[in-house]
Amino acid sequence: MPFIAHEAVKTIGIVGAGTIGSSWAAWFLARGLKVRLTDPSPATPELVRTYLEGAWPALRQLGVAHATLEQAASRLSFHASAAEAATGADFVQESAPERAAIKQALLEEIDAVLPPDRVIASSTSGFGVTEMQAEMREPQRLVVGHPFNPPHLIPLVEVVGGGRTSEAAVQWAIAFYNHVGKRAIHVRKEVPGHIANRLQAALWREALHLVQEGVGSVDDVDAAIAYGPGLRWAVMGPHLTFHLAGGKGGMAHFFDHLGPNVEKWWADLGTPLITPELRDLIVGGVDEEIGDRSYEELVEQRDQTLLRVLAATAKRE
Amino acid sequence: MPFIAHEAVKTIGIVGAGTIGSSWAAWFLARGLKVRLTDPSPATPELVRTYLEGAWPALRQLGVAHATLEQAASRLSFHASAAEAATGADFVQESAPERAAIKQALLEEIDAVLPPDRVIASSTSGFGVTEMQAEMREPQRLVVGHPFNPPHLIPLVEVVGGGRTSEAAVQWAIAFYNHVGKRAIHVRKEVPGHIANRLQAALWREALHLVQEGVGSVDDVDAAIAYGPGLRWAVMGPHLTFHLAGGKGGMAHFFDHLGPNVEKWWADLGTPLITPELRDLIVGGVDEEIGDRSYEELVEQRDQTLLRVLAATAKRE
Repeated sequence: MPFIAHEAVKTIGIVGAGTIGSSWAAWFLARGLKVRLTDPSPATPELVRTYLEGAWPALRQLGVAHATLEQAASRLSFHASAAEAATGADFVQESAPERAAIKQALLEEIDAVLPPDRVIASSTSGFGVTEMQAEMREPQRLVVGHPFNPPHLIPLVEVVGGGRTSEAAVQWAIAFYNHVGKRAIHVRKEVPGHIANRLQAALWREALHLVQEGVGSVDDVDAAIAYGPGLRWAVMGPHLTFHLAGGKGGMAHFFDHLGPNVEKWWADLGTPLITPELRDLIVGGVDEEIGDRSYEELVEQRDQTLLRVLAATAKRE
Repeated sequence: MPFIAHEAVKTIGIVGAGTIGSSWAAWFLARGLKVRLTDPSPATPELVRTYLEGAWPALRQLGVAHATLEQAASRLSFHASAAEAATGADFVQESAPERAAIKQALLEEIDAVLPPDRVIASSTSGFGVTEMQAEMREPQRLVVGHPFNPPHLIPLVEVVGGGRTSEAAVQWAIAFYNHVGKRAIHVRKEVPGHIANRLQAALWREALHLVQEGVGSVDDVDAAIAYGPGLRWAVMGPHLTFHLAGGKGGMAHFFDHLGPNVEKWWADLGTPLITPELRDLIVGGVDEEIGDRSYEELVEQRDQTLLRVLAATAKRE
């Protein structure tokens, strides 16, 4: 049986309304879809409403949302259980807390009511699909659909299938996320951290090493990214960047010309551990970097700059 | 004897007019300075002129250059030797090919004619200052001032002192680069790759590992950066990003909450070597990623997007 057509998806079930679930709700509402939301906290309607009020101006400014928040909110409903939120949904995005027992119980509850031609995606960063789908009635339709924080602003979604996931479900999810305006990639093996978090962790490991060894302050290491390669990585990924740096000879020339240098740098990279001393060093370094800027100022600065970067990169392809 | 005041610097000597030297020339001319340039190639005046014609519209668009290219070009002169280019210069940026013997000979030539109150910076990515300053008359004024390609667009400059460099020269260079509109950082120890190239190499190592292991295609790994963390790194560096991700608890909360996950990911990162097989795999993957886009189209896409990102991030502080 084929999965539901992407164009026929009108209603999204969202299970879990923390920052990830609320942000997913904002995105799907902005794209004109109905959202059926559930979360055990009694404060959920108020918290989600506040979240949407914060998120909506950016979504309007970026041209993602065309409706007013009032119009969009009329497409949002709150439900008492995962089963109720999933009933009538064409796709479910599970965003419950990162605890295996909670996620598995919710996934089984969704699985029991959702017709088999509908895909279920979990936002998990830490659990494997194979593990989570073990007790499902229709395990072939479970995927990881891991967003990058905050999901309503960062386009990336990492799609992973498990041992019992059908290839059709994986391809359906990738195409569906792209259909609603995200940028989905296929993570072809279940590995810790999927892809993006591993790449971040690799970079951060060397950043910590450089601070630990006294090569740079936290402030200078941060600036080395944000005023250097970070600017290029917002434009294109590392391989394409290096391909163009290789001139007409491209990636092959880059390997031949700079490969030996890169291998020399690799040989010198560090493998620090998160000791209490390193933690204190970094926390203190961040304090110095921040100076007298308040938390709210920094968040405002980040959000406004990120919005401009998103607008700047919206049409790169 | 103190170094010349930053405001008194009117004339820059540039030794070596490849892509790095030409790009430096574009930046200093845009900032209203005189540039004395030398390069052994007889085609230099024509190549530099072509480079400036390509670079100038972006420098105007970004508000870095106020003069027309004609006005700026009247401040540019070509010279037959490093000694001649350095004569009358208030600061020299050496950007010769990455060969130790060439650089050392040029640095000694500059050193012999430049008054001791003027700093000399080398753009080198591969050589240490201590090594390069060994035979200098005034070694205390030699620093590395390593830009990030292309120097007229990417703000980062990494400043490194050697064993015989004075702290005053390092601080002078950092303040001078910032004075002319760059973002200089202090690399406090001579390590291979300074800071930014090491961080890039660390990320790329894991990117190669993920492709090698079949976790993601080159295209998907590139997208994982450019549509994910790359967008955030154009805004602020990894530590400040994580600090804000930690909410009100900041960096300390981030360590406590996500540290164990990060350590699990670290334990799983790979250490690939650049074998012929890996090289072919990546070159082939880049070809697939590019599809039918021409080299010129890609360069145009990169340059236009980068310009918008630079404008988006120009006022983040």
